[in-house]
Amino acid sequence: MTLTGWTLPQSPTGRAATVPPPPWHYSGDIIAVDFSADPARVAELAPEGFTPRGDGSCTFFFCDWCSAAERDPRVKDDPGKGQYKEAYVTVNGTFDGRPFGRVPYIWVDSELSLLRGQIQGFPKKLGEIYMTRAIEIGKGGARKTAGGRFAAHVSSLGRRLATAAVTLREAVTGAMPAGALPQIHTRLWPSLEHDQPAVHELSLVKVADVEIGTVWRGDAALELGASEFEEVDLLAPRSVGPGWVYTMAFSVVGGTTMPLRGAR
Amino acid sequence: MTLTGWTLPQSPTGRAATVPPPPWHYSGDIIAVDFSADPARVAELAPEGFTPRGDGSCTFFFCDWCSAAERDPRVKDDPGKGQYKEAYVTVNGTFDGRPFGRVPYIWVDSELSLLRGQIQGFPKKLGEIYMTRAIEIGKGGARKTAGGRFAAHVSSLGRRLATAAVTLREAVTGAMPAGALPQIHTRLWPSLEHDQPAVHELSLVKVADVEIGTVWRGDAALELGASEFEEVDLLAPRSVGPGWVYTMAFSVVGGTTMPLRGAR
Amino acid sequence: MTLTGWTLPQSPTGRAATVPPPPWHYSGDIIAVDFSADPARVAELAPEGFTPRGDGSCTFFFCDWCSAAERDPRVKDDPGKGQYKEAYVTVNGTFDGRPFGRVPYIWVDSELSLLRGQIQGFPKKLGEIYMTRAIEIGKGGARKTAGGRFAAHVSSLGRRLATAAVTLREAVTGAMPAGALPQIHTRLWPSLEHDQPAVHELSLVKVADVEIGTVWRGDAALELGASEFEEVDLLAPRSVGPGWVYTMAFSVVGGTTMPLRGAR
Amino acid sequence: MTLTGWTLPQSPTGRAATVPPPPWHYSGDIIAVDFSADPARVAELAPEGFTPRGDGSCTFFFCDWCSAAERDPRVKDDPGKGQYKEAYVTVNGTFDGRPFGRVPYIWVDSELSLLRGQIQGFPKKLGEIYMTRAIEIGKGGARKTAGGRFAAHVSSLGRRLATAAVTLREAVTGAMPAGALPQIHTRLWPSLEHDQPAVHELSLVKVADVEIGTVWRGDAALELGASEFEEVDLLAPRSVGPGWVYTMAFSVVGGTTMPLRGAR
Repeated sequence: MTLTGWTLPQSPTGRAATVPPPPWHYSGDIIAVDFSADPARVAELAPEGFTPRGDGSCTFFFCDWCSAAERDPRVKDDPGKGQYKEAYVTVNGTFDGRPFGRVPYIWVDSELSLLRGQIQGFPKKLGEIYMTRAIEIGKGGARKTAGGRFAAHVSSLGRRLATAAVTLREAVTGAMPAGALPQIHTRLWPSLEHDQPAVHELSLVKVADVEIGTVWRGDAALELGASEFEEVDLLAPRSVGPGWVYTMAFSVVGGTTMPLRGAR
Repeated sequence: MTLTGWTLPQSPTGRAATVPPPPWHYSGDIIAVDFSADPARVAELAPEGFTPRGDGSCTFFFCDWCSAAERDPRVKDDPGKGQYKEAYVTVNGTFDGRPFGRVPYIWVDSELSLLRGQIQGFPKKLGEIYMTRAIEIGKGGARKTAGGRFAAHVSSLGRRLATAAVTLREAVTGAMPAGALPQIHTRLWPSLEHDQPAVHELSLVKVADVEIGTVWRGDAALELGASEFEEVDLLAPRSVGPGWVYTMAFSVVGGTTMPLRGAR
Repeated sequence: MTLTGWTLPQSPTGRAATVPPPPWHYSGDIIAVDFSADPARVAELAPEGFTPRGDGSCTFFFCDWCSAAERDPRVKDDPGKGQYKEAYVTVNGTFDGRPFGRVPYIWVDSELSLLRGQIQGFPKKLGEIYMTRAIEIGKGGARKTAGGRFAAHVSSLGRRLATAAVTLREAVTGAMPAGALPQIHTRLWPSLEHDQPAVHELSLVKVADVEIGTVWRGDAALELGASEFEEVDLLAPRSVGPGWVYTMAFSVVGGTTMPLRGAR
Repeated sequence: MTLTGWTLPQSPTGRAATVPPPPWHYSGDIIAVDFSADPARVAELAPEGFTPRGDGSCTFFFCDWCSAAERDPRVKDDPGKGQYKEAYVTVNGTFDGRPFGRVPYIWVDSELSLLRGQIQGFPKKLGEIYMTRAIEIGKGGARKTAGGRFAAHVSSLGRRLATAAVTLREAVTGAMPAGALPQIHTRLWPSLEHDQPAVHELSLVKVADVEIGTVWRGDAALELGASEFEEVDLLAPRSVGPGWVYTMAFSVVGGTTMPLRGAR
């Protein structure tokens, strides 16, 4: 009669739980597009303590992840469990004076990622995501060479939320998207009884073992679209580029939380 | 810079949040099958304070819901948002001496339902669910008349978890599935920093305005299947029936919580 | 070594074939919206022999079908096989002087329907379709009463192709959507060797046992959207309404074909 | 009033058609497992003229394709259109005395691939397919090194049809799966009026520009599962291995057809 599991559903063995505890490991392919939005719209999305850069700096990321869990080999062993795609936007600025990104909106195509992300404070919703993946032989797709075109899009409930493309120009060293920053999240879990949430706090994820593969930079296009259930289109790009295509790996080994700031 | 929304993602208007607050309204079609499992397996799924009936009594439910949110007309207005299917099993018993059901495992095919359910304490995961819906004219499907056959199944990651069928025998009054009971749930939200969860408590949902349409009873079949990520097959049926097909409506108007019991 | 089956894949028993032969039976729920498009755009979609009405008359249909196959009980018995949704537009006119509809574009969410339809000459593609289904008790959805609002939408690759809503005004007798007509289709199956298709002919489906349930008429809204892979938006509505909500059943018992007309 | 398009739907521009004509280009990642089945079961799946090897030799392939169409840049440009996964089994033998494979069963997760394949004679159905994709940095997945484990599975209507895994042992040259052979297909398109199909013929696809990347060989596991709608489980493995992980590219530039043989 001892039910166990890091998340629901708990069971006698814990094997049915949706999310195993960290450490979690990630290896993925990234398509990213820097853009600038209306600074007033960006400012509206900043929690107390986070200061946007002021120039409307944002980055839209598409990621195709392979993920693993240190304590649950099933996540890595079953591609239907550990592999998923995600699409998100960052607004870029500072938190307590240091460069930070904030993710106001993010979509994933996996139950594991949805809940694992919300636990960290990512405001994940489900979406349908497609990304060009690089080929190495033949003519069926795009290659990671100058002129290679990498496209991506995300939709939800049949509404196209973002459509991006990056045409590679050159491999670069020491350069990354503007939004390649640590992130400040908000964890939020409602109460069933009270108006005040049961959990409402800022969170920082502890990341380790970051590796970056070859980074390609290029010309980019980005369109954001409207939905009855989304507000990402308020960040409509005023200028777009550059775009980025690269691989990345890291581990999440835990996190820290702190109270929300201001009179919330 | 005030971010609002009952759940993530919070935004200036709150329009992007996945789940609006209760009251929530539900109207749905139900296919249910009573069965008995190994009482020892049932007992393992009981939280402290919940006493299974002792005879292995369980019920498997498939539900095709239309849902609405009192404070967000978009849920009712867009069938892609408010309508969804779910499949769950109850183990049937008592809590503090009164008849109660416990839902150890449940799958839904909607993001809204997944999170709205977890907030209440339903251990929802995503699944692919199909259910026979009743027809009234023609020969394309099954009718709610004696002999009508209603089938349902649920799967996850390509593993069939439950396959059920009910062949209608008669409309009945005053009879319902064994698992048509109030339910005692566990709310669980992990901490990002500590071994102890941020939220871990028992919960009771406040239900109002229950309506039951015509209830059909009949002969039933039920098979439970195995998956690397599930344990529902441990409740393999020892005997099956009767089965039930009916419509139901109710509202969730809030909930109450209480501490977990025992040395957890 | 005798392989059998009405379609691929053929096997020793024929059990693996995707589509069993007719007769096929259908029972469904319909949401339809009459509208008028640019008559020049409508005329472009007419095959030789089909004369559009001239006023741009079109109808957009959303259907939630239960289907069965006379010679294969599995279609009716498994809701995952026989049940599906479809969305299509008709342009309304005459063929050889008699009232006929033509379906230039149609989307379905089922493999069975995709192929079964193409065999008849429906130009079916896959799409994601949502439709309000009527409730009879409670407050979770819309009822078939004056004021009940029935919405529907279809999308493909994350592009919203059509969004419709009908607000019921009254039950009517003897009235139906403008596009409730027999249909003239084109069957087309490419050759693997030659420029000329292996099959290219006009087709008429033999329909029997048509039943129409209560027909509700009401006010309607309809928007058509663009996609890189679709042209339905060229039929952008110039005027919209009325809308219709009703149930319908029929059987397909075969078909006849005739040569394409004109210098094709 | 000239409707154009290689497949349905035809339109004034041809832009809405599901499948553009060949040449088609493919670049992909393959996970394959050789196995032997009951030779009697294999023999049942051979069309007249095809002679199985006699030892029950079969190969199960999982492929993650990027595809392009020479005359329609949209296929390559939109990853939601051109990229897809497929799973298929070959029975291995000879046709007219030369080594050939036959594909009795195949599943894909894309409308384009479903129809493009059926036109060639592949008996494609829809399925849900997951495959481990190789990583190059980090710990989120499997690498193409000795010991790397590549898993794959395919399901349809919630029934797991095949589950495979290959643990890499060594990169090899000059070796390939037993089923890496040209294939003899059957094109079949039913008539709407007659018992005899409108199209029923053998077909050979003309392949050009084949490229094979590094080929890894290893130990393999394979399980086939049952479904009400499938017969692949009749090929239950009697022995399994080796397994293969490699990349491959080729173009389809057309095809030839010939009459079915024997008294069909």
